Amino acid sequence: MKELKARIMSDGKVKGEGILKVDTFLNHQIDVGLLDRVGKTFFDHFKNEKITKIVTIEASGIAIGMSVAREFGLPLVFAKKTLSKNIDGEIYSTKVESYTKGTIYTICIAKKFLNSEDRVLVVDDFLANGSALLGLKSIIEESGAELSGAGIVIEKSFQSGIQRCLDAGINVYSLARIASIRDGQVTFVEE
Amino acid sequence: MKELKARIMSDGKVKGEGILKVDTFLNHQIDVGLLDRVGKTFFDHFKNEKITKIVTIEASGIAIGMSVAREFGLPLVFAKKTLSKNIDGEIYSTKVESYTKGTIYTICIAKKFLNSEDRVLVVDDFLANGSALLGLKSIIEESGAELSGAGIVIEKSFQSGIQRCLDAGINVYSLARIASIRDGQVTFVEE
Repeated sequence: MKELKARIMSDGKVKGEGILKVDTFLNHQIDVGLLDRVGKTFFDHFKNEKITKIVTIEASGIAIGMSVAREFGLPLVFAKKTLSKNIDGEIYSTKVESYTKGTIYTICIAKKFLNSEDRVLVVDDFLANGSALLGLKSIIEESGAELSGAGIVIEKSFQSGIQRCLDAGINVYSLARIASIRDGQVTFVEE
Repeated sequence: MKELKARIMSDGKVKGEGILKVDTFLNHQIDVGLLDRVGKTFFDHFKNEKITKIVTIEASGIAIGMSVAREFGLPLVFAKKTLSKNIDGEIYSTKVESYTKGTIYTICIAKKFLNSEDRVLVVDDFLANGSALLGLKSIIEESGAELSGAGIVIEKSFQSGIQRCLDAGINVYSLARIASIRDGQVTFVEE
């Protein structure tokens, strides 16, 4: 997605160790218009997949999920990272390792929101080590639903996640594929 | 907001101790169409306030924030509850007590996203003890910006938060005001 790549080049900030900050438009301050165009792009790509539900993970995934779910006219379900008094009943859960935070956490979705009739599109802001997406895949399949595809805004193609997800059979579509983040420079995968 | 109250009556689940679950449409699975109508309602109410930025708190506030920010054509900024490798630089932060989780946590916003020219509309899903909204007020005022109003989807009018926020001079507009949650029944404030 040309507009997204241009925005990463103009507004993204490279930090050491393969870290890209996109907090001015994607995951702290949000450019709603850009995300709506992201949502439209995912819709165009996955519109024939008979999707029944959009799934993401809190927190920054929710913003993208809203734009995608609106395009499809479908409900958005976001996996939670913490249990509160307000979650009860049966849940699907699995453990996920955070790349940016360096921690392991549990994600969960209430069982009532996924069933064997569902064809799920997962969306998320980043694909790095792939743990979040693989965790969602495990939850979705445990419910009997089908993971029809994954829409990723920024794929760090130089990390292990994309290959792990392709090996697991996930139909991944990424809008910006980053080949390297080095010496303060972002280089995209040639396509 | 009539549609919202009807939805709370039909799909909300009362749990003991004043807890209302609205996870089928507001904070786990999200009805995007409903939230867009919530966004329109907040826009109609606050449209003359010369708002420059929409602010909320992760996670469930982001969904509402997206719908409201779209109506206003403004950026959404969400306060973060955790620090990651990806937040750095100067931040405003304050401590907040969670009613549903029974814990104290820190919320923060990068300084670059708020300045003295801003007129901020805060939006959130619930107003209970008011700590989140008062915490955001403190951050916003520390930046020199003005808190022009607060749009709340569900106000628990029987808890202390609404009075604390009114006493602090916040211009609160709530779409569903709950007088009591008792014996499995939700009763709204008569208006």
